[in-house]
Amino acid sequence: MMPMDKIEGRNPVMEALRSGREIDKILVAKGTRGGSLIKILGKAKDKGIPIQYVERQGIDKISKSNAHQGIIAFVAAYKYVHFEDIIKSASNKGKDPFIIILDKITDPHNLGSIIRTADAVGADGIIIPKRRSVGLTAIVAKSSAGAVEYVPVAKVSNIAQTIDRIKEKGIWVIGAHMDGTKEHYNTDLKGPLALVIGSEGKGISRLIKEKCDFLVKLPMVGRVSSLNASVAAAVLMYEVFRQKVNSSG
Amino acid sequence: MMPMDKIEGRNPVMEALRSGREIDKILVAKGTRGGSLIKILGKAKDKGIPIQYVERQGIDKISKSNAHQGIIAFVAAYKYVHFEDIIKSASNKGKDPFIIILDKITDPHNLGSIIRTADAVGADGIIIPKRRSVGLTAIVAKSSAGAVEYVPVAKVSNIAQTIDRIKEKGIWVIGAHMDGTKEHYNTDLKGPLALVIGSEGKGISRLIKEKCDFLVKLPMVGRVSSLNASVAAAVLMYEVFRQKVNSSG
Repeated sequence: MMPMDKIEGRNPVMEALRSGREIDKILVAKGTRGGSLIKILGKAKDKGIPIQYVERQGIDKISKSNAHQGIIAFVAAYKYVHFEDIIKSASNKGKDPFIIILDKITDPHNLGSIIRTADAVGADGIIIPKRRSVGLTAIVAKSSAGAVEYVPVAKVSNIAQTIDRIKEKGIWVIGAHMDGTKEHYNTDLKGPLALVIGSEGKGISRLIKEKCDFLVKLPMVGRVSSLNASVAAAVLMYEVFRQKVNSSG
Repeated sequence: MMPMDKIEGRNPVMEALRSGREIDKILVAKGTRGGSLIKILGKAKDKGIPIQYVERQGIDKISKSNAHQGIIAFVAAYKYVHFEDIIKSASNKGKDPFIIILDKITDPHNLGSIIRTADAVGADGIIIPKRRSVGLTAIVAKSSAGAVEYVPVAKVSNIAQTIDRIKEKGIWVIGAHMDGTKEHYNTDLKGPLALVIGSEGKGISRLIKEKCDFLVKLPMVGRVSSLNASVAAAVLMYEVFRQKVNSSG
């Protein structure tokens, strides 16, 4: 189960809603009333957050603060960032952005492993889609060996549109795909870039593939013609790292 | 009775059929559908392999991986090769041996992933110790995406002694370790070589480390100062691959 934090009371829950923090569900004690509550519930409904009405004793039991005012929100323990913040953070460090885009990774061990490698190579952040993708769960956190605390992860509604925005900022978007004409190590991977890694079963989707500035292939000479997604991501990330270090040396 | 192993899921079962592996029987969950299943069953019928249709709960009970996708094949347990056969097989192909030595990998997903990458880069085989290491289990086979059918694996009583024998044959033994003075991409990894990868928790043991001809380090600039074992192995294997291809070009 996802490690859950509880946010208790009207103002804190309203703040969580305003900040765009991921909220799993909101519990409201039956019979609770007031204008601020109506505002909170309206905002929650707009965001599609499930609301459950429970007996007040139930809320009392769950509450840690005993100041819940009849409302408790369950939030993912890990926060997502806005994808623009990932790019800004790179700029603030005076370096070329290095972003990882994951097109529907579903295995939490793979996502955890990719976050761990992203930390190791100094990537600025990871972008995942809201739908059909594993999020920052407890297993992901564990598989990341704690790197989830340091690598910003953004969750976006539409990967294709996000790629357009990224390209507008002068960042090259490079997809890992067998249709790539050049091997990763024969491709210039220096400068501002975003690597796109596809899902475990299907690779990069057709639409996303077409959005990429170019494709690189990981050469394979064996009989099984695919790699584990987290392995493919790691090999590419380390090739970017190698080229960046060599060019600055 | 012959020791039996299970191969679970469509791609692994298909790989087993393609590779000509001895299959005792195939269980299919009633109601399972799909084009890939029809292909598998057609191939199984051609080969005269018995197919049994059972209730899905029956398959669920038998499954070890919980990723059976409605199909499980019963096969003779995976055979190990002698480590000298791995070296001979490389010589027979007229190429420099490229061997992976795993010092006590315990996670079956990691071993499976390493076998899969070893297949992709054309490594000649993998050496694992008899004790304190995961062997060729059903989960390993599944994680290898079927590559376990193609990559020879040798199980040895004593990794240190095996390294001595390997060195006697003129093969360089290179360990992945943070004490390495040079990065993997700044190290000559061409020629006959064996890569040593340590266990998930502890890395390469002291004795094995001392046996290595030299150590290479995977540079890390993040806050979490280690990589997943299968990721570290993959990054190194692909660097060997890159150098081999570039030197022959």
